[in-house]
Amino acid sequence: MNSALDAHDLHIRRVGIDTWRENVAYLHRDCEVVRATGFQALAKVQVRANGQTISAVLNVVDDERIVSACELGLSEDAFARLNVPEGHSARVAPAEPAESIPALHRKIAGERLDREDLHAIIRDVAAARYSKIELAAFVVATNGYDLDRDEVLHLTEAMIEAGRRLDWHQAVRGGPVVDKHCIGGIPGNRTSMLVVPIVTAHGMLCPKTSSRAITSPAGTADTMEVLADVELPFERLRQIVRDTNGCLAWGGTADLSPADDILISVERPLAIDSPGQMVASILSKKIAAGSTHLVLDIPVGPTAKVRSMPAAQRLRKLFEYVADRLHLQLDVMITDGSQPIGRGIGPVLEARDVMQVLRNDPAAPSDLRDKALRLAGRIIEFDPDVRGGDGWRIARDILESGRALVQMEALIDAQGRRQQPPPLGELTHEVLAPADGVVGEIDNLHLARIARLAGAPQVSGAGVDLLAKLGDAVRTGQPLYRIHACYAADLTFARTAAERDGGYRVAAQATVAPAATAAA
Amino acid sequence: MNSALDAHDLHIRRVGIDTWRENVAYLHRDCEVVRATGFQALAKVQVRANGQTISAVLNVVDDERIVSACELGLSEDAFARLNVPEGHSARVAPAEPAESIPALHRKIAGERLDREDLHAIIRDVAAARYSKIELAAFVVATNGYDLDRDEVLHLTEAMIEAGRRLDWHQAVRGGPVVDKHCIGGIPGNRTSMLVVPIVTAHGMLCPKTSSRAITSPAGTADTMEVLADVELPFERLRQIVRDTNGCLAWGGTADLSPADDILISVERPLAIDSPGQMVASILSKKIAAGSTHLVLDIPVGPTAKVRSMPAAQRLRKLFEYVADRLHLQLDVMITDGSQPIGRGIGPVLEARDVMQVLRNDPAAPSDLRDKALRLAGRIIEFDPDVRGGDGWRIARDILESGRALVQMEALIDAQGRRQQPPPLGELTHEVLAPADGVVGEIDNLHLARIARLAGAPQVSGAGVDLLAKLGDAVRTGQPLYRIHACYAADLTFARTAAERDGGYRVAAQATVAPAATAAA
Repeated sequence: MNSALDAHDLHIRRVGIDTWRENVAYLHRDCEVVRATGFQALAKVQVRANGQTISAVLNVVDDERIVSACELGLSEDAFARLNVPEGHSARVAPAEPAESIPALHRKIAGERLDREDLHAIIRDVAAARYSKIELAAFVVATNGYDLDRDEVLHLTEAMIEAGRRLDWHQAVRGGPVVDKHCIGGIPGNRTSMLVVPIVTAHGMLCPKTSSRAITSPAGTADTMEVLADVELPFERLRQIVRDTNGCLAWGGTADLSPADDILISVERPLAIDSPGQMVASILSKKIAAGSTHLVLDIPVGPTAKVRSMPAAQRLRKLFEYVADRLHLQLDVMITDGSQPIGRGIGPVLEARDVMQVLRNDPAAPSDLRDKALRLAGRIIEFDPDVRGGDGWRIARDILESGRALVQMEALIDAQGRRQQPPPLGELTHEVLAPADGVVGEIDNLHLARIARLAGAPQVSGAGVDLLAKLGDAVRTGQPLYRIHACYAADLTFARTAAERDGGYRVAAQATVAPAATAAA
Repeated sequence: MNSALDAHDLHIRRVGIDTWRENVAYLHRDCEVVRATGFQALAKVQVRANGQTISAVLNVVDDERIVSACELGLSEDAFARLNVPEGHSARVAPAEPAESIPALHRKIAGERLDREDLHAIIRDVAAARYSKIELAAFVVATNGYDLDRDEVLHLTEAMIEAGRRLDWHQAVRGGPVVDKHCIGGIPGNRTSMLVVPIVTAHGMLCPKTSSRAITSPAGTADTMEVLADVELPFERLRQIVRDTNGCLAWGGTADLSPADDILISVERPLAIDSPGQMVASILSKKIAAGSTHLVLDIPVGPTAKVRSMPAAQRLRKLFEYVADRLHLQLDVMITDGSQPIGRGIGPVLEARDVMQVLRNDPAAPSDLRDKALRLAGRIIEFDPDVRGGDGWRIARDILESGRALVQMEALIDAQGRRQQPPPLGELTHEVLAPADGVVGEIDNLHLARIARLAGAPQVSGAGVDLLAKLGDAVRTGQPLYRIHACYAADLTFARTAAERDGGYRVAAQATVAPAATAAA
C-alpha cells in the first residue's frame, strides 16, 4: 500500500507565474496523480510537504518545460506560502472543502451569519484556503447591505484577529494615537500628506500607514514615494515615529489585515466596494495599526463613491456602530465630493500640490488647503487640552507659520529622502473647452480613468493636471486639463479615452455661479 | 506615434496550460507593455491579432522559459479562441469592460434584469468576455430564486440563441422528437440507457445527447462509453439517428449551449445548482438539440438535490412556465430519490446493471427496471396513436420481448462497439454492517463522493457496488457495499472517506419494513 502511495510523490518546482494571491498548483496531464485520481483543471487540491499543508487550485499543463510528469509546479504565491525548497518531495490529494464553506453557502442562500461563522470564513480566507471563485462568491453574497451591522462588526473583529496588531502604548504613554482616512473615490485628494505634518507638529502621535492605489490614479503611499521611501521595515517605522511623532508609510509590509488584502484582490476586478466590506476593511486596518482616534472623510457627489446625503448618513451610522463596539473614537466628516481636490491627479502632480500648500505658495490649490485644515482641526480637537472649536485655528497657525513644512521635511528625511525625484511626464496633450461657458460638471471617475490610462500610478510622472475647476468661466479652445505621460502608447490610450468623453461639461450660459473663495 | 506603438507588438506563444474555459494571457514582468501601462496581475486585457480580438485575464510571469519580454503567452483556451498561429504579432491594450457589466452590477445590487440585459450577458459569457471572477459573481447573484420566472425564460432563450441548433424535421416528418432528462443527484440512476432503446424500438425519434459527469461518479455518456463510442461527429450522429431512430451520445461536441458550458465551469467548483440556472441549462440544451417533447425526472429525498415535495412542486412549475413559452411539451415526474437507483455506482458497474435489465436477468435491479419502464411509458404516451394509460404496458412488452435488447445492440453497433470493454476495478474494500438491524438511510451524496474518490468516472472500472438497499435486514459484519478501484491510492482515498462516514445508517430494530417487491 505504501509503495503505491510513494509513486504519488512529486518534486516541487517553482513556476514563475504571479497568480495574485491565489495558490495555483501546476500538474502535467501525464502525471500519475492526474491520470489516477482524475483531477480536472480548477479542482481544489491539498499539497503536503515537510509537515506543511496548503490548498491550491489545479491547472493542468501540457508542456514539459513548465512541469514534467513527476513534478508539482507551484505559482509564486503557493511556493512562498508552502515555504519548502525546490526539488523537495510533496504529495497531492483532493482537498477537503474549507471548514467554512457551509457557512459561505448559507450566506449565498441569504441567511444571517453568526460570529463564529464569520470568524471561520476569515480564518480560511487569510490561510488562502478559498479559491478566487469562492472569494468572488463571498464578496457578492455580502454585497450592498446584505450584511447587517452585527455581521459587519463580527467581520471586522475577525479581520483584526487574522492579522498582526501594532502597539504604540510605550511611545504614546496613554495619549491618543490618531489617524485620518478617506473612503476614496476623489482624485487628487491627498490631504493625509498635509494632516500628518500638522497634527504631529502639534505633538500628537500619528503613525500613518497608507495603501497604494487600488483602482485610483494614486494612493497616499504612491504620492509620498515621489518624495521619500515608504517601504520601511516595522522596527525602522517604530523608530521614526518615536523621533518625529509620525510617518507616512506604506501599510503593505505590516500584514495588518491579510484577509482584507485577499478579499480586495477580488473586489478590485469586480469593482465592488460595498458598505459592509468597506467598514470592515477600513476599521480592521486602523484598529490593527493601533489607532485609538480616527477622523473619517466621506465625500458625497454625483460621481463620488457615495452619491447622496441619505446614503452618506446610512454609511456613517454603520461606521459608528462598529467603531463604538470596538472602542475606537470615531469622528465622521461628510465632505463635498463633486469634483477632484487640488489640481494634480497622479503621484508627481499631487506631490507638487501638497508641497505648494506646505510652502504657503500663493499658487497652491485652495480647496486642498481648506479641506486639510478642517480635517487636521478635527483631529487636534481629540487632544484633551484643546478647547472645543479651537482645532481649525491651531491647524492654520501651524501651516502658516511654516512649522508644518519643517515637520514634513523631517518626516521625509527620517524615512529617506528621494535624491532623484521622478520627473513629470513630458509627453502632453491638452483637452480644450468645446464652447464658451462655465464648468458645470467634472466626472471624478472619468478623470481618474484618463489619469490611469496615462500611466498613473505605476508611472509616477503620468497623470492629469486640471486647469479649470467647477464654476470657472472658460472660452472656446481654452485648455480644461493637460494629460502627462512618459510613454507614447500611454498618451494614446489616455487621449483616445478623453476624445470619446472628456469628463467635463461646460454649461453654455453662466447658470452656475463662480465658486466662492472658501473662507480661510 | 506609430513607431512607438509598434514597440508594443508582441509575438504570440502558446503556453500549454489548461485554464478551463478562461482566457489567460501571460506577459513577462519586464515586457514593455507591463512596465509602461502598469498592468497588474488579474487585470483584464484585450488581445488583437490579425483582425481578431479576445479578452483575457493577465498573469504576470517572471520566468523567460514560459514567456520572454517580447512574447505574449496564451493559455490553451485563449490560443484556440484567438486562432492565430504561434509567432504571429499581437497587441495588448487595457480591456474595455464587457458591454453587459453594468447589467451584472445591477443584478448584484438585487435588481430585476430585462430581456435585453440577459441576452447581452449571455452573449458576453459565450464570447469568453467574462473572467472567472465575473462568472462567479453572476452565478451567485442569480442563485436560489433570485431570478424570477421571466428572467429565467429570457436566460433560457439567450442561451439557445448563443449556440447551435439541431433540426430533425427531415428525419421525423412532423412527428415528435422525444427526450428524457433527470435533474441529477441520484447515483446509479442510468434510466436513459433503458428508455432510449425502448422508445426508439417503439418507433419514436429520440436522439439523446448526454453529459459526462460533472459532480457525480458517472454521467450517461461515461456509462455508455463502456459499451460504445460516444464522441461522434454531428453528421455521423445524424446518420445513426436516421438508421436506428436514436442514439446515446455525448453532447459536448454539438456546441448546443456554449454559455451554459462556461457557467457550469464555475457552478461546479462552487457546488451551486440553483433553480433558475438549472431550468435554463436543461431546457436550453433540450430545445437546441431539437427536442419537441420532454419527460423530466425530479427525484426528491433527504439527500437528493430537491429535499421536499413543496420544493419539487415549485421547481416543476418553473420548468413548466419556461417550457410552455418556448413551445416544448413537458411532462414532469416527481420520483423517489431517497437512495441510489440500481446497485452499481460508476461507469462499468452501472453498465452492468443496465445490461442485466435489458437481458431480463433475474438478478437485475428491480428499482432501475421499474423506474425506466415508468419513464418510457410516459414518453410513449406522447405518441398520438397511443391511448392514454397504455404507455407503461407497451414499454414493458418491448423490454420483456427482448426487442429493447436488440435495439440497444443496434445502437451500440451503430455508434461503434467497444471491443475491449474496460474491466471492473480489481482492488476492493467491503464496508460492513456495524450491527444487526435494517438499513434505514443511505446518503446519496456520501456514496457518490466515495465512488468519485475511488476514481469514477475517469477510471471507468472504479466505483461502489451496493449489496444492501433501504429496508434490507442485515447482520453485524455483513457487507453493505464494496468499493472497486484500479489504483491503490484511490482505494485509500475512498476507504478513508468510508471509514470516517460509511453513508449508511442501520436501525437497531426492524422499525423500517422490508421493501415491498414493486409490482411489475
